[in-house]
Amino acid sequence: MLRSLSHKTPSLLFNFNFNNLTSLRTTLTITQAFSSAVSPPSKAIVYDSHGQPDAVTKLVDIPGVKVKENDVCVKMLAAPINPSDINRIQGVYPVRPEPPAVGGYEGVGEVYSVGAAVTAFSPGDWVIPSPPSFGTWQTYIVKDQNVWHKVNKAVPMEYAATITVNPLTAFLMLEDCVTLNSGTAPLAAILVFLVGDAIVQNGATSMVGQCVIQLAKSRGIHNINIIRDRPGVDEVKERLKDLGADEVFTESELEVKNVKSLLGGIPEPALGFNCVGGNSASMVLKFLRQGGTMVTYGGMSKKPVTVSTSAFIFKELSLRGFWLQNWLSTDKAQEGRKMIDKLLGLVHDGKLKYKMELTPFDDFNTALDKALGKLGSQPKQVIKF
Amino acid sequence: MLRSLSHKTPSLLFNFNFNNLTSLRTTLTITQAFSSAVSPPSKAIVYDSHGQPDAVTKLVDIPGVKVKENDVCVKMLAAPINPSDINRIQGVYPVRPEPPAVGGYEGVGEVYSVGAAVTAFSPGDWVIPSPPSFGTWQTYIVKDQNVWHKVNKAVPMEYAATITVNPLTAFLMLEDCVTLNSGTAPLAAILVFLVGDAIVQNGATSMVGQCVIQLAKSRGIHNINIIRDRPGVDEVKERLKDLGADEVFTESELEVKNVKSLLGGIPEPALGFNCVGGNSASMVLKFLRQGGTMVTYGGMSKKPVTVSTSAFIFKELSLRGFWLQNWLSTDKAQEGRKMIDKLLGLVHDGKLKYKMELTPFDDFNTALDKALGKLGSQPKQVIKF
Repeated sequence: MLRSLSHKTPSLLFNFNFNNLTSLRTTLTITQAFSSAVSPPSKAIVYDSHGQPDAVTKLVDIPGVKVKENDVCVKMLAAPINPSDINRIQGVYPVRPEPPAVGGYEGVGEVYSVGAAVTAFSPGDWVIPSPPSFGTWQTYIVKDQNVWHKVNKAVPMEYAATITVNPLTAFLMLEDCVTLNSGTAPLAAILVFLVGDAIVQNGATSMVGQCVIQLAKSRGIHNINIIRDRPGVDEVKERLKDLGADEVFTESELEVKNVKSLLGGIPEPALGFNCVGGNSASMVLKFLRQGGTMVTYGGMSKKPVTVSTSAFIFKELSLRGFWLQNWLSTDKAQEGRKMIDKLLGLVHDGKLKYKMELTPFDDFNTALDKALGKLGSQPKQVIKF
Repeated sequence: MLRSLSHKTPSLLFNFNFNNLTSLRTTLTITQAFSSAVSPPSKAIVYDSHGQPDAVTKLVDIPGVKVKENDVCVKMLAAPINPSDINRIQGVYPVRPEPPAVGGYEGVGEVYSVGAAVTAFSPGDWVIPSPPSFGTWQTYIVKDQNVWHKVNKAVPMEYAATITVNPLTAFLMLEDCVTLNSGTAPLAAILVFLVGDAIVQNGATSMVGQCVIQLAKSRGIHNINIIRDRPGVDEVKERLKDLGADEVFTESELEVKNVKSLLGGIPEPALGFNCVGGNSASMVLKFLRQGGTMVTYGGMSKKPVTVSTSAFIFKELSLRGFWLQNWLSTDKAQEGRKMIDKLLGLVHDGKLKYKMELTPFDDFNTALDKALGKLGSQPKQVIKF
């Protein structure tokens, strides 16, 4: 009997047994003869066990599955390779499907066919799994209609494919962690500026970092950015300033006695974002004002965060984390979809952009090597199906 | 001209010029001849500059000062030597009087005389400065009546002298940081236990630590305690369990793969208190449940707190600090006094006790040496005037 892929909930595991592919293909032919509501066969990036992604992933043909009455069959258009996708394959991410599993967690597709009871979607619609859902690295996906969220087709597909994991993280960290005051333009009548609060972040060239800069800018919130020392640093600084960065410092530029002397007219930041750890996190802490908060959402250096006792007691700093997957696992799915629409609106209006590279699905291995950092610093890799 | 000691506000600095003591004594005699409302001369522990307390403090005679109409003159009975007192003398505490200054920050005294406009206090009343106020290591203090809070004379003076800095810290950390559910005894009718939340703390033998155990116990909150390895550890454990400790572990006993396996039936703690830092703080973090909070209020090991990225993101831990002096500097003075009355009520009822040693003022140097740790582990030193 055909063991169909389970698609009912976004967190459902991919439990297809790939050892039986040959016999399944035979079964599939029989099934298709009895039902017109079957998805086209799919090509998927699959891993049978946890390990290094370039060692354990392979391209696999998957037979079509039945499109039940509440299902939507989606032909995938694009899906990114995020660091968390890599961590899931490595088996080091706390929430992950058990192998064998299809890789990927977010992406955009076009509705190919719908089940008999589905009225909210039509073939040709662009949809994203929202909340994101395991297994987006495949050409066709069949899941319950509740999984899918229709998005504006007027944005580039690579933005629709990547709008959740990184931009939504940036958006929520700015909105939810601390109440920040926005700045205003001077009111002509009274000639008073309301000076906006400030934030500081490390890893500013990351996709979240680029989004934080633009979202802060659009809210009148000053932003101070820390990047690692690297070749071509001036060009990187210029690019971030073009996005709206107020200040960009390399870590070595911050080896001064009092980093706050570098702030100029910018207020001491109330909120800091850390995706690096180690010394870079300490730099964020140094910039924070009395009573400030640092939110950790990544640890690219693989070094822990170290905090002095006096920073807690006398500077009254608070430290916490942010994890989108946890935020979305609460009852906030609908709220999240509204935010995604807002973010895609900003993309559409040219107010939110970030560097990506579209790579054909056939060149998945190249995209993976780039995402793994084997080919030096590269833009976010987005697979185009 | 006599430069009188300034006593108007709790935070006012002690700005007496000790170089003029001789001439001042002459002036004092003259002043006394013209006014009956002058305090008796005082003996005080004074430091002229920041430095090691045993090197920079000295006993000084201070002439009496005028008791103005709203002033209360208090004959001090007892005052502790707290670690923060030592840090102020060393100049490493962020809020401190500028030298020359009288040491001490809390204590209890007996009203000696009152200004003409004072009706709330009478000679013989026991009072404490509340919020605490610099300069309690002297035999007579004259300050505005607003500084003083009348306390129950039925408690031992050493408890009235020490009730603010440590017990109030314990009380506020348990009340303010996280909403904890208290446990209840089983209701006979329905035979259901409401299992109380749990807390974990290091430095459990400290005065705050001893108070946390008893206050948690009285609220039906489980408490897990971490102490450093030391000789006579069994006796220390027994003593803490007598106070109400549910579990007491030495740091070496916690070098196991999963500390939570040691919890038995106690729920994973929602809240942790850290006054040590370093490895001992990491132990507190390990015990905390998903989404738990660690509050740092001291750093006895002089080592920083180190936190992994995943503890922030995946375990969703929050870290913050607590500083009583900051809490009291807000508009919470009256609230603080009510809590102090409550704490002294617990002392009176035998529900709050901690180890102290009363040392005569004449033996101040011995008390100081003990407080500085020169004579090994010693109980809290309280000067008896």
